[in-house]
Amino acid sequence: MLIHSASQLITLEGGPQRGSKLGELGVIENGAVLIRNGLIEKVGGTEALINNYPDEERFDAKNRVVMPGFVDPHTHAVWVGDRANEFEAKLAGKTYLEILAEGGGILSTVSATRNASLDELKTQSKERLMSMFKHGATTIEVKTGYGLDLETELKQLQSILDLDEEGPWDLVPTFLGAHAVPQEYEDNPDGYVDLICNSMLPELINWWNQSAKGRSLPFVDVFCETGAFSLDQSKRILSSAKELGFPLKIHVDEFDNLGGASMAVELGAYSADHIVMTSENDIKAMAKSDLVGVSLPGTPFGLAHKEYSPAKSIIGNDGYLAIASDLNPGTTWGENPQMIIAIACRYMKLTPAQAIAAYTINAAKAVGKHAEIGSIEPGKKADLLVLSIANYQQLGYRYGTNLVDTVIKDGNIINYRN
Amino acid sequence: MLIHSASQLITLEGGPQRGSKLGELGVIENGAVLIRNGLIEKVGGTEALINNYPDEERFDAKNRVVMPGFVDPHTHAVWVGDRANEFEAKLAGKTYLEILAEGGGILSTVSATRNASLDELKTQSKERLMSMFKHGATTIEVKTGYGLDLETELKQLQSILDLDEEGPWDLVPTFLGAHAVPQEYEDNPDGYVDLICNSMLPELINWWNQSAKGRSLPFVDVFCETGAFSLDQSKRILSSAKELGFPLKIHVDEFDNLGGASMAVELGAYSADHIVMTSENDIKAMAKSDLVGVSLPGTPFGLAHKEYSPAKSIIGNDGYLAIASDLNPGTTWGENPQMIIAIACRYMKLTPAQAIAAYTINAAKAVGKHAEIGSIEPGKKADLLVLSIANYQQLGYRYGTNLVDTVIKDGNIINYRN
Repeated sequence: MLIHSASQLITLEGGPQRGSKLGELGVIENGAVLIRNGLIEKVGGTEALINNYPDEERFDAKNRVVMPGFVDPHTHAVWVGDRANEFEAKLAGKTYLEILAEGGGILSTVSATRNASLDELKTQSKERLMSMFKHGATTIEVKTGYGLDLETELKQLQSILDLDEEGPWDLVPTFLGAHAVPQEYEDNPDGYVDLICNSMLPELINWWNQSAKGRSLPFVDVFCETGAFSLDQSKRILSSAKELGFPLKIHVDEFDNLGGASMAVELGAYSADHIVMTSENDIKAMAKSDLVGVSLPGTPFGLAHKEYSPAKSIIGNDGYLAIASDLNPGTTWGENPQMIIAIACRYMKLTPAQAIAAYTINAAKAVGKHAEIGSIEPGKKADLLVLSIANYQQLGYRYGTNLVDTVIKDGNIINYRN
Repeated sequence: MLIHSASQLITLEGGPQRGSKLGELGVIENGAVLIRNGLIEKVGGTEALINNYPDEERFDAKNRVVMPGFVDPHTHAVWVGDRANEFEAKLAGKTYLEILAEGGGILSTVSATRNASLDELKTQSKERLMSMFKHGATTIEVKTGYGLDLETELKQLQSILDLDEEGPWDLVPTFLGAHAVPQEYEDNPDGYVDLICNSMLPELINWWNQSAKGRSLPFVDVFCETGAFSLDQSKRILSSAKELGFPLKIHVDEFDNLGGASMAVELGAYSADHIVMTSENDIKAMAKSDLVGVSLPGTPFGLAHKEYSPAKSIIGNDGYLAIASDLNPGTTWGENPQMIIAIACRYMKLTPAQAIAAYTINAAKAVGKHAEIGSIEPGKKADLLVLSIANYQQLGYRYGTNLVDTVIKDGNIINYRN
């Protein structure tokens, strides 16, 4: 199939974009893409490609932008229930502690997810993934972390593996057993860290080898934050995971700077995520490494916080910056990557071009997949979006709606408008 | 037709909601609505209505919220072109003055709108109105103000009248010739005020009587703000309009407090809009009157400003508060009322219930139509939304997507999902 006549073809060719390179879109005006067997075969001008492949089936993208599908490198999309009542209660003046005392907060989602069947978990999660996909996310990282016991964590992983097969999207699984300390270990958090290191991670490997049909191991992630896991505890978990061969990720500096990003650099993690209260030292350590800083602007927006990731400093220090949705039931239930871009433009002062690169090629690097996805280059997966706008700048400028006209996944045209 | 089994039927019965009454949703669980001839005939529980009207055609709203359509009482939806390039230039570091010097800002939209044919203007505007309608706005106020000469202002009004007939929505027209001082009057702003008072308004009446098929006169609105029209100029324009019989609206306190809200109260205006930097005096004057304060939270969001309307104070003083989108190409291109609610919850600390009342029954009052729309009560228009959520609290909590499953306008089911 030949997609042709795109007003702008955003190729993002040349690999992940460090520092001031962020936002080099590689725009081809009146561009075209040849797709064969689910892969991108040729990229160029419309006239040349139509001349060279006159008999190819055609898709006319006139007056529309064609770009790579969004890669969402940080979500908690697999859960059961909602916390809308807490959202209203907080606005009506209830404090966080009052809500916790009534059984609210993350542990209420843990409880609902533990009590749910695999089918319920899959049904509710699939709706969210479908919404993300319709809004342009073709690859989506999904974390566990609403189980906090092996059985439920594996149920979440099973959901992710099943939903990866059942839906048009690609899912990237991450084990986040260290999302919070479960109530059973309230008085003995180090005991929970021991459990993860000595029991959950090794058992996960056995389970994975039986259940995941030869897939490489999932990421292991830790929530390194005051009130969750300390720097030492986080290091113990990630070091154990590394020894067992897991690739690593980390949540850091959402509310507090503990030095987790520098530690993640030392351990060779793929990404450090949230990075709001990150110190200049941590930013410099990240920038000297291959690690991607993943900013989650939906979270401060969701919480109406004033502080966002220091994007200018990350870029100025020549680091890799990606953005993601952080989709979760507590702080930010937003399934639309375009809305995340709109927030990033306003509150992190990214240009639309920078935000697009951060949500595609750099996001692909954050999940270790930049050789397969995140740009429109020969040999990559044909995961493309046709937008209902003629100029990419309208992403970010316009907000709250869906500017995706058509999603093309593995070369298949999937048009949810019809 | 009988809409039945709604998990929550949000009636908003009892008229516009002052002060602490804001947010009284009048929820009927397992609710039903009987619609005949485009009007609401009965409202009640599902069992009773099914028993009383067993042969009525049925619409099953199981697991879904049914609520009145959103009334958007403040938009500038009719224009040509976009200012996405300015949005990007500002983020890349250009100043407002540099952009103005390059012909940008509101006057670039004025120039594009002057140069457009009626057909172009209608085609581009219709797309936006359709997007608003799909996201739940069944009645939409639309202002002129990108003409700033009689000919183009009338072209905008003609578009509004035509689009009102051509689309499923109801449009409420407003004349905003005093949106900005046009370049021709740069050195003589009072001359432009004279032109509006002595020539444009009287000629508008003649045109209206010939063109508007017996419709009552449109609103007249003024942008009362430093850099636009002074308090004196605004008063001259609104007083002239009042003498000629026009109903009044005013833009005040977006950036600066000039006392416009109190002046609008004295003149008996229907609403004062923006109301961000509004003084305590002005808030008290509004609260003692019948005027509705219309907050436009998309605008500070669009501009990444920190100040939003002082909702708590307006409510605490027992005033009427409504919210609206302010859809326009300069500061906020967002067509989704649900996103405006999400912003209002986070930055004005409205609860979802308060935001829903502010965007329906109180918004209807801001355009003088609360006897016809804005609630689900017998005798009102059957303008309803069926939401794809079981609990109204999810509005505001979830953001950036479209939670409207089905729009019902004048009793007709219009489902844009299919």
